[in-house]
Amino acid sequence: MTESKRSVFFISDGTGLTVEAIGHSLLAQFHGEKVEQVTLPYIDSTDKVQRALERIERCAAESGLRPVMITSIVSDHIRQQLHRSSALMLDVFESYLTPLAKLFGRDPAQMVNVSHGIADDRRYSERIEAVHFAMDNDDGRRVREFEQADVILLGVSRCGKTPTCLYMALQFGLRAANYPITEEDMDSTALPRVLRPFHDKLFGLTIDPRRLMQIRQERRANSRYASLEQCEFEVRQVEQMLRRAQIPFLNATQLSVEELATRLMSQAGIERRFG
Amino acid sequence: MTESKRSVFFISDGTGLTVEAIGHSLLAQFHGEKVEQVTLPYIDSTDKVQRALERIERCAAESGLRPVMITSIVSDHIRQQLHRSSALMLDVFESYLTPLAKLFGRDPAQMVNVSHGIADDRRYSERIEAVHFAMDNDDGRRVREFEQADVILLGVSRCGKTPTCLYMALQFGLRAANYPITEEDMDSTALPRVLRPFHDKLFGLTIDPRRLMQIRQERRANSRYASLEQCEFEVRQVEQMLRRAQIPFLNATQLSVEELATRLMSQAGIERRFG
Repeated sequence: MTESKRSVFFISDGTGLTVEAIGHSLLAQFHGEKVEQVTLPYIDSTDKVQRALERIERCAAESGLRPVMITSIVSDHIRQQLHRSSALMLDVFESYLTPLAKLFGRDPAQMVNVSHGIADDRRYSERIEAVHFAMDNDDGRRVREFEQADVILLGVSRCGKTPTCLYMALQFGLRAANYPITEEDMDSTALPRVLRPFHDKLFGLTIDPRRLMQIRQERRANSRYASLEQCEFEVRQVEQMLRRAQIPFLNATQLSVEELATRLMSQAGIERRFG
Repeated sequence: MTESKRSVFFISDGTGLTVEAIGHSLLAQFHGEKVEQVTLPYIDSTDKVQRALERIERCAAESGLRPVMITSIVSDHIRQQLHRSSALMLDVFESYLTPLAKLFGRDPAQMVNVSHGIADDRRYSERIEAVHFAMDNDDGRRVREFEQADVILLGVSRCGKTPTCLYMALQFGLRAANYPITEEDMDSTALPRVLRPFHDKLFGLTIDPRRLMQIRQERRANSRYASLEQCEFEVRQVEQMLRRAQIPFLNATQLSVEELATRLMSQAGIERRFG
């Protein structure tokens, strides 16, 4: 017999992204528990709640374990309906709207789908522009737009520059460019000439050579590019370059894209454009 | 005298992304309130809490309004220190760890920085690969990798395909390609030949022609490309093409990137690779 997993449902009348984030934070504190995570977004009608309830009860019966629901439901009515479930229900609005309403001295609006909606057209356009900027200015493809960048990431190939730039664009509307330090740049540990006018926007990423090797092996197994010797050489040269030019940097080895983005913004004092 | 704004602090011992998301959901229910939002990430030491507290009290004194703190602090000790503030404090761990600990029958781990950390190397690599896949397969640049795609988005230029693909890659590890329907494809309303083998992976985005015009005007003002006539023509052709080929589609006009991604995944039954 396989061990039963406890079901954890993330239920929202919107995208479900917020309750997922809360759920992941909470579950991380109970590492090792066997759970089955299910996200049910856009639960915004009596019918949909009904189907969700049936699914939850089915999981409860099959596992013999009381499920958990982390929920974010604006409508009192739908929330009450969910409460009929046998699961442990933790609802963000239920927990926090009352104290906030008291503080603001007014009732909440009960408006669904506002948190991840399009706040305004300007913000939407800024975000799209930022994404296209990050794509156009990826991998040193162009440098003539560096003037307009909020930040320019430097580092060896495959240390995490591209996803970090795209994340900053999507999440914070930042114009993030990146420039790979290639072997040609490594003849000396001086900063490549093309980057010098933008010294204040530069931020470095470095990485443990063994981890870099692992990542590169997946891409081009047994190549010189992916050899430990090459990875060690490149990382050493880039770190020297960054130190010599007094460019702040972070080690990406243990950091997720979210952590890299928020840490580097915090360290370099880069203000988000929105978010 | 300008009207005072109430300060709302999002405070976390990690990235702050989760408390920001919660805060945005909650504040959206009190639309119209004048608030000043401040995120303080990585508040993980007595010193940092002390500086945060000083800042909060300064805001309280200047505005004459009690601040709000939406917090996510794993350490009991640091949480207690924050409680000394005069602000209204709503802490996710405080609210939810106790009921969960009771359910799981064990104490929480009090581990910081686990929710947005690198869960495992495999997940990290999948995510990076997904991002590079989305970039390489953007804008119909290549089609030879469509075989490996989880989803292929179709639509006119600047309807939101690129940011949606990148978001799905970053957030869910999906391999999302996109293909712009250009004027050459519009001679007929038949699906471009190159897409036909991938019918099951196709998903359309459409958009209100006036909104499309607005977006394109910002890019190339007064061009034929950005004219209302051209936008109307392209949208009409593409919608006919999608209907004729029985490809599901969404109207992107009122939807954020998060909403587009989660709705299309839900509609097309696309399972995330992680997240």
